[in-house]
Amino acid sequence: MTSLFSRLKADCTADWVAYTDHAFVRAMGDGTLPEAAFRDYLVQDYLFLIQFARAYALAIYKGRSLAEMREGFQGLKAILDVEMDLHVRMCAGWGLTAHDLESAAEKGATIAYTRFVLDTGNAGDLLDLYVALAPCMIGYGEIGARLAADSGPLTHEENPYAEWINEYASIAYQELTQSTIENLDTLAAGMMTEARYPRLLKLFSSATRLEAEFWQMGLDEAR
Amino acid sequence: MTSLFSRLKADCTADWVAYTDHAFVRAMGDGTLPEAAFRDYLVQDYLFLIQFARAYALAIYKGRSLAEMREGFQGLKAILDVEMDLHVRMCAGWGLTAHDLESAAEKGATIAYTRFVLDTGNAGDLLDLYVALAPCMIGYGEIGARLAADSGPLTHEENPYAEWINEYASIAYQELTQSTIENLDTLAAGMMTEARYPRLLKLFSSATRLEAEFWQMGLDEAR
Amino acid sequence: MTSLFSRLKADCTADWVAYTDHAFVRAMGDGTLPEAAFRDYLVQDYLFLIQFARAYALAIYKGRSLAEMREGFQGLKAILDVEMDLHVRMCAGWGLTAHDLESAAEKGATIAYTRFVLDTGNAGDLLDLYVALAPCMIGYGEIGARLAADSGPLTHEENPYAEWINEYASIAYQELTQSTIENLDTLAAGMMTEARYPRLLKLFSSATRLEAEFWQMGLDEAR
Amino acid sequence: MTSLFSRLKADCTADWVAYTDHAFVRAMGDGTLPEAAFRDYLVQDYLFLIQFARAYALAIYKGRSLAEMREGFQGLKAILDVEMDLHVRMCAGWGLTAHDLESAAEKGATIAYTRFVLDTGNAGDLLDLYVALAPCMIGYGEIGARLAADSGPLTHEENPYAEWINEYASIAYQELTQSTIENLDTLAAGMMTEARYPRLLKLFSSATRLEAEFWQMGLDEAR
Repeated sequence: MTSLFSRLKADCTADWVAYTDHAFVRAMGDGTLPEAAFRDYLVQDYLFLIQFARAYALAIYKGRSLAEMREGFQGLKAILDVEMDLHVRMCAGWGLTAHDLESAAEKGATIAYTRFVLDTGNAGDLLDLYVALAPCMIGYGEIGARLAADSGPLTHEENPYAEWINEYASIAYQELTQSTIENLDTLAAGMMTEARYPRLLKLFSSATRLEAEFWQMGLDEAR
Repeated sequence: MTSLFSRLKADCTADWVAYTDHAFVRAMGDGTLPEAAFRDYLVQDYLFLIQFARAYALAIYKGRSLAEMREGFQGLKAILDVEMDLHVRMCAGWGLTAHDLESAAEKGATIAYTRFVLDTGNAGDLLDLYVALAPCMIGYGEIGARLAADSGPLTHEENPYAEWINEYASIAYQELTQSTIENLDTLAAGMMTEARYPRLLKLFSSATRLEAEFWQMGLDEAR
Repeated sequence: MTSLFSRLKADCTADWVAYTDHAFVRAMGDGTLPEAAFRDYLVQDYLFLIQFARAYALAIYKGRSLAEMREGFQGLKAILDVEMDLHVRMCAGWGLTAHDLESAAEKGATIAYTRFVLDTGNAGDLLDLYVALAPCMIGYGEIGARLAADSGPLTHEENPYAEWINEYASIAYQELTQSTIENLDTLAAGMMTEARYPRLLKLFSSATRLEAEFWQMGLDEAR
Repeated sequence: MTSLFSRLKADCTADWVAYTDHAFVRAMGDGTLPEAAFRDYLVQDYLFLIQFARAYALAIYKGRSLAEMREGFQGLKAILDVEMDLHVRMCAGWGLTAHDLESAAEKGATIAYTRFVLDTGNAGDLLDLYVALAPCMIGYGEIGARLAADSGPLTHEENPYAEWINEYASIAYQELTQSTIENLDTLAAGMMTEARYPRLLKLFSSATRLEAEFWQMGLDEAR
């Protein structure tokens, strides 16, 4: 059976490719990405994570059962207890201090995607919220896996972006990706109608385009 | 075809009857309701209307199209531009001043139903919100029509509650009831699944029980 | 300096006493509370906790900094990772199964307080939300401490409600109470104005009255 | 006494000038703006207005009194009953049909500002929401007044953008601008603290920068 995610992705292929095979991504893959682009990305991604934690908190608030609340709680814990620290550590490796991260201003593309997700979640139901989150959660897994498969395991000497690639290609992240896909199907089993699908596709493709603009923001910075 | 409303009502008959044929309602119908009970009800119903206006504002915020936003806007306009004034006028007829209304404290039963609707609306989608609103909008129409049919047209001399009964038995209100039923079906056509039905029924029956407790609050006051 | 909590409590003394010295509380203290009342309370309090977890999730969503988000996260973790289990265990001691808890219907008084908090939080800011939560968090600590002080340490043989009393009189809970009071002051330092105080007092006293009605619900059940 | 708006504007002068004296604005003023840029702007501004109606609906939901609810209701009515029609008519004059407007996709800059306002409103209180709305409501009045003052009354033959300029320079719109400034002060009188000001300034300057990016989006389209 096709997952809801596979169906959404297949129905906006051009947007999905423009995001997951973005010039920024390819340049990480072959190690040619300008450092300024990556550093800008890291800072904005830190600000992005804070908003994503808020989105998972919203998912808990919107849970209609303890099980749904706990599902959102796992996502929130992963961000606040694990990913934020990982991120700060990766940033430190690139010379970015906690102060650099906290004092940076959010750029338009960061605001656009994150607030789109949050407003979608407030206005709609849990399925709307998770569909808007999906391009990020699942797309990063897909990108990490592909870049790692293209090159084999990398060291920092071979590619300065090896740590990023290895992180998202890791078994732990791939499992998270898979469980995100399954959680969407669980929700869809109860709440999805064919009449609703076009709107979900619109949400998903909008979120996917906003992700592509997030990559582009990094490249624009390095021009 | 059965409307969603008819199905919900049929599936919680006992709750529905306990609300629409509550002792408070019957006592309005035969004119024996203690005046203290009615005056208490009028004050709490005024506070209730303010929260219902907030619920319709929320419905506009949650609208996914201009058409859905305008549907909520009609409901909001009806409350803020028409019903509030009607209510204040009816209250004046019972000697309640604007100051009486504004300085009154909301009682538990008023808080319970209104905040249940508002939180349901924030946590869920537009269908959840309108299902939670339905027992009020549609139930009042059903009660008004039945009381009027039981007694025929009434004057204030025959029954001190004639104005209330005539208001909700009026063609204008009956049309509003009908359009509320149809709006639920329009939403359900796009967003309803069988898997979702048990939860909608739980929402609807909870809201119906909270409406019955709202009547009971008036009776308790007059003891 | 007076804490915001002390000021609010002093300005609605009658409501606060009606809640913290409610007949239900006194009957727990001397062990005369009918078992049926306590069992009803335990079931409703379980449903209450689920809604309180949602309120803390909302506090995270509304956090304006990582520090504020982490403050709400601690509260959420305490409920989902600790208190729910404690509660289920205490319920088991009274013969209530997980199924009893999950299949129970929320009563009006449970709905009234919890949804009042959630709607207050959605409509207002973080200070409004925490003020609405305060009577529960802080009041239970005050009740636990007073009942324990009145009787000294209790065994289950001396008082069947000893476990409840000891739990809320515990150092861990007393510290939570204290940090809740301090968190209110931290928020108030940044967001409080004298013009705002009357509305905060209204929120606080409404929430306090709804807590008293929550106790009363248990007594009514046992009649 | 300085209004809150004047203070905010004075404290982010560079952002405010970059928005209100943007190249797009100057090119409207001297009639040199490429038609493609204006048409793109008109389409996105239509989508923008829909989201602004949602923001005013949120302001009603968040109103803590009937007076505050009615304040938001006036804004909502102005958009849904008047401005949307005006806008559709202006668009028709530029050959844009209702279908063009409704089928257009929101661009990143449109999403960024509108969802920033909506999320700010959901997370914060009424003052946060109105501060985030202020650059739009008040800035357009300031721009319209200045462009009209620079050139005197214009006809369509003299400047193809005369209708736009005259609309926002009109007495009706200038009065709306003034009442928006006053409403901010009314809210601030009750809810503003000095400790809160830096965050309000951050909100205001972010919203102002997002408005500048909205103009830039039109220019980028016409390249």
